[in-house]
Amino acid sequence: MRVNDIKKYRKKDIYSYSFGPFPTFELLHTKPEITESVLVHSDATEEIRDKLKQECGKTGVKIIYSDRTVEKVRDKDNCIIVGVFKKYSSILEHNENHVVLVNPSDAGNLGTIIRSCVGFGITNLAVIEPAVDIFHPKVIRASMGAIFKMKIACFPYFHMYDQKYGEERENYPFMLKGEYPLGSFKHPENRAFSLIFGNEARGLDAAFRGLGKSVVIPHTQSIDSLNLSLATGIGIYEFCVKRQWEAEEEVIHR
Amino acid sequence: MRVNDIKKYRKKDIYSYSFGPFPTFELLHTKPEITESVLVHSDATEEIRDKLKQECGKTGVKIIYSDRTVEKVRDKDNCIIVGVFKKYSSILEHNENHVVLVNPSDAGNLGTIIRSCVGFGITNLAVIEPAVDIFHPKVIRASMGAIFKMKIACFPYFHMYDQKYGEERENYPFMLKGEYPLGSFKHPENRAFSLIFGNEARGLDAAFRGLGKSVVIPHTQSIDSLNLSLATGIGIYEFCVKRQWEAEEEVIHR
Repeated sequence: MRVNDIKKYRKKDIYSYSFGPFPTFELLHTKPEITESVLVHSDATEEIRDKLKQECGKTGVKIIYSDRTVEKVRDKDNCIIVGVFKKYSSILEHNENHVVLVNPSDAGNLGTIIRSCVGFGITNLAVIEPAVDIFHPKVIRASMGAIFKMKIACFPYFHMYDQKYGEERENYPFMLKGEYPLGSFKHPENRAFSLIFGNEARGLDAAFRGLGKSVVIPHTQSIDSLNLSLATGIGIYEFCVKRQWEAEEEVIHR
Repeated sequence: MRVNDIKKYRKKDIYSYSFGPFPTFELLHTKPEITESVLVHSDATEEIRDKLKQECGKTGVKIIYSDRTVEKVRDKDNCIIVGVFKKYSSILEHNENHVVLVNPSDAGNLGTIIRSCVGFGITNLAVIEPAVDIFHPKVIRASMGAIFKMKIACFPYFHMYDQKYGEERENYPFMLKGEYPLGSFKHPENRAFSLIFGNEARGLDAAFRGLGKSVVIPHTQSIDSLNLSLATGIGIYEFCVKRQWEAEEEVIHR
């Protein structure tokens, strides 16, 4: 890829960008094999340049010093380094826990959810289309680069995901009218689970009630609903983090 | 207040705005006494106009039809109604649970946190300055109008809050290096609690460890930290919602 070919991001491109030092160093650490180059602006501090030289030296990633190119691709004036990487596809693990997002539409939400997943130990994400572009630079930024630690696969319909991965797995659709309040039941430890969340505005279609054990996060009547990334974060926390404490308590009780 | 006096929002103004139908109807329902008027753009649907006439008729709030004024104050082109309200101050309740935000800097985060608080039954919020303007229209929007159901008080230093409300109350500072993992202990039911969270970038100063029972939300090493609004949401969920289930379980077990 030549410098002149580097353009403002479009969904159809085979490359995308990490904006800013934090996500770019995450990219270099986690996925050097797909990193094409790092663009550096003359506003970058000496410290960042040195760290970058060191990191890129290890992996053979090219550094391009070009104010013009950084200014062409970045979306905010304070962005002084940009990682250029090749989009990739992943295959989810059958025996691991998944999060499934049905029609997520907001790039910031998707990135935040990815960060929470990785933070609580879930590294498999299924996205049911239509959905926001998973490689949009806004997703990369909101994930703080956690996206590079995540396996993400897109499916045109939920049933295509379910056919491939549903066997030997418990589905938990999160719904405003879910049957089981979160925290009031335990997931059997010998099976993997999929936590399923709907679109920001519409939630999950009523049909999802029949596709697993539907879960509601109890909240007061004073609000209409919880924010999607918060609901997802709380769901993952309850399933992943709380279970560990409960398991340890059981050990203590014996 | 005359129509010509209505200007783009500035922090020093005594009025602020709710942008869009949802927050504006929340304003009218919850705080009609501070609502000065509602501005309506000619792009507003018949349905919204009718609902508005009904609501304002009940409370005597003035409706102003003026494209020019809406266009002058709004921050997004698709905003077609604007509530104008007088900023107000509140006094927190001594015997209720509080959330304390130390130096929150992002309007969107603050609004989202307010929405989570109200959703999980916490209606007292202390904000330690310097902090984002609590009445910025972006806060109102991100809260989806939940801010009008919340008592919010600002303090120049944490110790001024603590002096006024700290007695007979348990402080839980949330810190990356907190001593007690969230979910591993129980808060004594006969005391009120304050859940304390730091700034988005810096978290809480180490000195907060001495000011209460410091709490950490366990997460993997794969991320640097959790997003502030997520950490706050999970903290409130664990303290407010989970405790209810556990209390009910105890009842069942007897």
